[in-house]
Amino acid sequence: MDELEALGRLAEVVPAGGDDAAAVDGLVITTDMLHERTDFPPGTTPYTAGWRAVAASLSDVAAMGGEPVAAVAAYGSPSFEWDDVAAFVEGAQAVCSLVGGEYVGGDLDGHEEFTVATTAVGRADTPTPRTGASPGDAVCVTGTLGQSAVALDFFERGEHERANELFRFEPRTYAGIALGETATAMIDSSDGLARSLHQLATASDCGFAIESPLPFDDRIDEVADGPEERRERGLFFGEDFELVCTLPEAAVSEMIDELAVPLTCIGTVTERGVTLDGQELANRGYSH
Amino acid sequence: MDELEALGRLAEVVPAGGDDAAAVDGLVITTDMLHERTDFPPGTTPYTAGWRAVAASLSDVAAMGGEPVAAVAAYGSPSFEWDDVAAFVEGAQAVCSLVGGEYVGGDLDGHEEFTVATTAVGRADTPTPRTGASPGDAVCVTGTLGQSAVALDFFERGEHERANELFRFEPRTYAGIALGETATAMIDSSDGLARSLHQLATASDCGFAIESPLPFDDRIDEVADGPEERRERGLFFGEDFELVCTLPEAAVSEMIDELAVPLTCIGTVTERGVTLDGQELANRGYSH
Repeated sequence: MDELEALGRLAEVVPAGGDDAAAVDGLVITTDMLHERTDFPPGTTPYTAGWRAVAASLSDVAAMGGEPVAAVAAYGSPSFEWDDVAAFVEGAQAVCSLVGGEYVGGDLDGHEEFTVATTAVGRADTPTPRTGASPGDAVCVTGTLGQSAVALDFFERGEHERANELFRFEPRTYAGIALGETATAMIDSSDGLARSLHQLATASDCGFAIESPLPFDDRIDEVADGPEERRERGLFFGEDFELVCTLPEAAVSEMIDELAVPLTCIGTVTERGVTLDGQELANRGYSH
Repeated sequence: MDELEALGRLAEVVPAGGDDAAAVDGLVITTDMLHERTDFPPGTTPYTAGWRAVAASLSDVAAMGGEPVAAVAAYGSPSFEWDDVAAFVEGAQAVCSLVGGEYVGGDLDGHEEFTVATTAVGRADTPTPRTGASPGDAVCVTGTLGQSAVALDFFERGEHERANELFRFEPRTYAGIALGETATAMIDSSDGLARSLHQLATASDCGFAIESPLPFDDRIDEVADGPEERRERGLFFGEDFELVCTLPEAAVSEMIDELAVPLTCIGTVTERGVTLDGQELANRGYSH
C-alpha cells in the first residue's frame, strides 16, 4: 500500500484528520514529516530547512482559515552541530514571526537521516472545509504556481542562493484568514494544482472547469524546455503551498481587492469531472 | 555536541521550549520524535508503538498540569502495511480516550527507519513550571519507578506480551491536573528519577534530600541481579513517565488522598545538592 492509499484509508478511521489540518475544539492542528532524501535537496541551508518545514505546517493552518498560535519541530539528525541547529531555529522563528505565530521549540533526536517533523496549531472558530464547493462557484488560486519546481532546478544547477530563496515561501496565512470567511472550500496546493483540484472535487462531490492561462511563475521559462515541461512544473510538481479555493462568483472581485497577494480566478465549479481547457486534467502530483 | 548539550543551548534561544511542554496563549504544546533503533525494541507491536508514542507527549502535557485537547502523529516507515498503520492508530486513539484528549490523525512519510513524531496540545491557564521549588517543600513521585527498564528486560527475554503491556503506560493526566494546582514545580520522569531531579534542581535553583525506600516497581526484582542492578533500573533508566513534583509539606497528605494513583513522598527540597540517603546522587540518565 502506498502513502496516498494509506492516507485515504486513514481518513476513514480518523475523521478529524481528513483535511489540511484537524479541527478540534476551536483549534486546528497539523503535522508533517520531512526528510533529507525527498524534501531537502543538497544545497538546502539549515535556515531554509527550518523555515520551510515550519512553513509547510503553517500553510495547512492557512488552508483551514486558521490564525496561527504556535509551531514546534522535532529535529532528527546524525549530529547536532550547534550552528546548524541554531540556523534551523532562526529560520523557524523567522517564518513564524512573518505570519504571526510563535515558534516554541521542540525535540532533538539522534537519527541516521536528517528528518524534521513539524506541527502547527492555530485557532479557527469555523474552519474552512474541503467539502463546500458547489456548481457555479469560482475557482481561485493565490500567488504563482511552480516555484518549488523551479527551486529544484536551481538546486540541480548549483544556483543555491536563488534556490534557497524560492524554498523559503511565505505561508498564505493572511490570505487564508480573509478567504476563510467567504470561501466555500479551500486546500493548499502542496500536492500540485492538479491533485489538489481532484482532492477538492472528491471532497465536495463536484467538478472543475479550469481555463488557461494559469498563473505560472515566470521563472519556469528559465528552466523548462518547451510547453510540456512548463506544464509539468506548473500543474503537477506541487510543493507550492498556494491556496486553492472556491468562492461565490459575486465575492471574487472584492477578495482580489482585499488580499495583499495576487488572487487569480482560474475556472468554475461544475457538476463533475476536472478539466483544463475542456480536456481531462490527470489526477497526479506530488507523493510525499 | 550531544543532544543534551544542544537541548540546553536551545532552551536559551527558544525560551518557551525549556520545559516539558511550551506554554503559549493558554495552551501547552509538546513534540517528541521516537524511532525504532532506540525506542521500539524488537517485539513492540504497532498498537503499543502508537499508544506509547502519543502517551509520551501526553505525559509532557500532564507535567505542565495541562488538560489534553488533541494529539497528532507523523508516521515514517519503509512500508505502509494497512494492518500496522491501523493498529498504530488504534493504540494512539486508545490512550487518548483513556485520558480525555482526541487523536486527530497526522502524516505518513516514506522513511528508511520506522520513526514517529508525536505532538500533544493541552489547555493550561497556569501551567506548572519547573522553577518554583523552594527549601522545605516535600518531593513526591506518582506510581512506581523502573517499569520501562523491566519492559526492556522482558523484550530481551522474549516475554513480549508482558513487555508490551508495561510499555503501554497510562499518562498521569488526572494526577497532573490535580497536582498542578498545588505543586510548586513539576516534571515527568522520562529521563529517569535521578536526571529529572537534577533538572528540577537546576531550574528551581535548589537541592533535594531524597530518602529510601523509593517506590521501585516490584517486577524489578524479577530481572535485576542484586542491589546495584536494581538501583540502576529504578533510578537511572528512565522512560517511566511518572510525575516528580514538589509540594508544600501541608498539602502532601491531602494530595495522597485525592489522587487515584499512588503518590509517594520521597524527600525534601534543600538549598543545594541532590542526595540519596545522604550520598550525592549522580546526574545521569536516559539520553534520547
